[in-house]
Amino acid sequence: LAAPTLAVAADAPPIGLPSWNDGEAKSAIIDFVTRVTTEGGPDYVAEADRIAVFDNDGTLWSEQPMYFQGMFINDRVKAMAPDHPEWKDKEPFASLLKGDMAGVAAAGEKGLVELAMATHAGMTTDDFTKIVKDWYASAKHPRFDRPYNEITFQPMREVLDYLRENGFKTYIVSGGGIEFMRPMTEQMYGIPPEQVVGSTITTKYELQGDTPVLMREPKVDFIDDGPGKPVGINKFIGRRPIFAAGNSDGDYEMLRWVTSGSGPSFGMIVHHTDGEREWAYDRQSHVGKLDKAMNEAEQRKWLLVDMKVDWNKVYAFDK
Amino acid sequence: LAAPTLAVAADAPPIGLPSWNDGEAKSAIIDFVTRVTTEGGPDYVAEADRIAVFDNDGTLWSEQPMYFQGMFINDRVKAMAPDHPEWKDKEPFASLLKGDMAGVAAAGEKGLVELAMATHAGMTTDDFTKIVKDWYASAKHPRFDRPYNEITFQPMREVLDYLRENGFKTYIVSGGGIEFMRPMTEQMYGIPPEQVVGSTITTKYELQGDTPVLMREPKVDFIDDGPGKPVGINKFIGRRPIFAAGNSDGDYEMLRWVTSGSGPSFGMIVHHTDGEREWAYDRQSHVGKLDKAMNEAEQRKWLLVDMKVDWNKVYAFDK
Ligand SMILES: [Ca+2]
Ligand SMILES: [Ca+2]
Repeated sequence: LAAPTLAVAADAPPIGLPSWNDGEAKSAIIDFVTRVTTEGGPDYVAEADRIAVFDNDGTLWSEQPMYFQGMFINDRVKAMAPDHPEWKDKEPFASLLKGDMAGVAAAGEKGLVELAMATHAGMTTDDFTKIVKDWYASAKHPRFDRPYNEITFQPMREVLDYLRENGFKTYIVSGGGIEFMRPMTEQMYGIPPEQVVGSTITTKYELQGDTPVLMREPKVDFIDDGPGKPVGINKFIGRRPIFAAGNSDGDYEMLRWVTSGSGPSFGMIVHHTDGEREWAYDRQSHVGKLDKAMNEAEQRKWLLVDMKVDWNKVYAFDK
Repeated sequence: LAAPTLAVAADAPPIGLPSWNDGEAKSAIIDFVTRVTTEGGPDYVAEADRIAVFDNDGTLWSEQPMYFQGMFINDRVKAMAPDHPEWKDKEPFASLLKGDMAGVAAAGEKGLVELAMATHAGMTTDDFTKIVKDWYASAKHPRFDRPYNEITFQPMREVLDYLRENGFKTYIVSGGGIEFMRPMTEQMYGIPPEQVVGSTITTKYELQGDTPVLMREPKVDFIDDGPGKPVGINKFIGRRPIFAAGNSDGDYEMLRWVTSGSGPSFGMIVHHTDGEREWAYDRQSHVGKLDKAMNEAEQRKWLLVDMKVDWNKVYAFDK
């Protein structure tokens, strides 16, 4: 496994994937990166075209017991409740405030959108960014009692670093809200805001007095999930990536798009197989359902990462 | 004017703005860049936050006798006409095919949208990119009889280079079609596709046989003009730029947004004052109308560049 050092600039620090166990998965990643960075080789890819895209929930950080943005919504509804006495009698707010998550779920997608809009719209972009930052600074994951930025996958952070050291530009392409991610992706993953693609609500330019602001409106602009992911990639990035990582059927179309280009490409799926250190789920899960993409992984030559087997650490704080 | 070299890394080539005449405009640009790159100085801006945004039409290249994307539409309707015999009797296609531009104009905005959709939608993104590249390779500007990539403003290309040499990330933020620009911006301006923000039509992920494609649909997704520019900046870039250049009232809100941040910022307007080397127009023009933004330039401390006075070259081919 000395190959990767060939691809690394002479003055770069030695790079590896220390949280990955030796095996097929680790070798496949290193082999691909080595091939596309070997000048004069048949699979060489110019640096400008080394675009890598990563799903976020379940791929770069956990998504249990619910999407972390759902935890944010939960906390925000509670924090905002004193200013909204009407929520006591209005579903799904009433159920949420009583901690009755089954009651929240009963309100269906329409109810979830209402909760999302109540907590994500009606303020300026600057104000929302501050709310998000404050939440990240104070909220803790219920199982691990640690801030959410620590519930990120150390092996995937190493993949991000490794790709960047090899001239890749790394992007997040997530179904999550773009402005829920951007305040933290630089710190968590070394990914700047302009390299975060996600779902958006509309914003509107307005003057507050003589000061221009962007007001967040309760209206969906773009859903960056499933077939929306290649659409978002094309819209925001404008060229076809050569590396994609996901964990669910919501990444299926992105994986297809990225691995259908004319040159070399790499698709990988994080399979949640570790019920002890993290969670184990796939075909039957209502969060991060992985079924069709797993069925086709072999045919499409996508790497199926077995979290339990391939990772010697899940989180940085794991012993 | 030796100051700028202070701000440039020791190993960088000497940078200047040779196509700019010495004077207030050139000094203002250099002074701003020097201030925000002087470490320890009161106006120092971290490199990651040095985002610069440029309008395209009339700011980086000419926009007369019509927007160049209009020339593309014109050429494409003619090229496609043999496959569309019905256009002979259908406005605004019929007028365009007869070269009757007044007839085209009579169809109003609705007619222009029809022309745009007929030439921009109904094919895959890959096919459209090829069409655009072929057009750039063959089309010539009617006045100069040169390819459109040469009808770019040499002084502005120098500003782009100068900013990048000083750690800025340069973006286009244009009302033009994003996929009409992306195939050429790297070559014309050194700006990669992922740093081009523009107007978009919707695309749809589909399978052609077993091959995923993105089909371009005849439906407006986003208009990146006027108040849409700060919206597009926020959506695509996710942080507030500190440098903005435009040439018309369509850039007014972008200039306001960029120059309303809490730190140092710079706004500039290219004023088309040179009827000999280029074109002279402002308040009364239906292309690139510059009225409100010019009225407020002094109050807002935006630099008003006088093309005739401040530029010793307009195009690279000028003597
Ligand atoms: Ca996911
Ligand atoms: Ca313009």
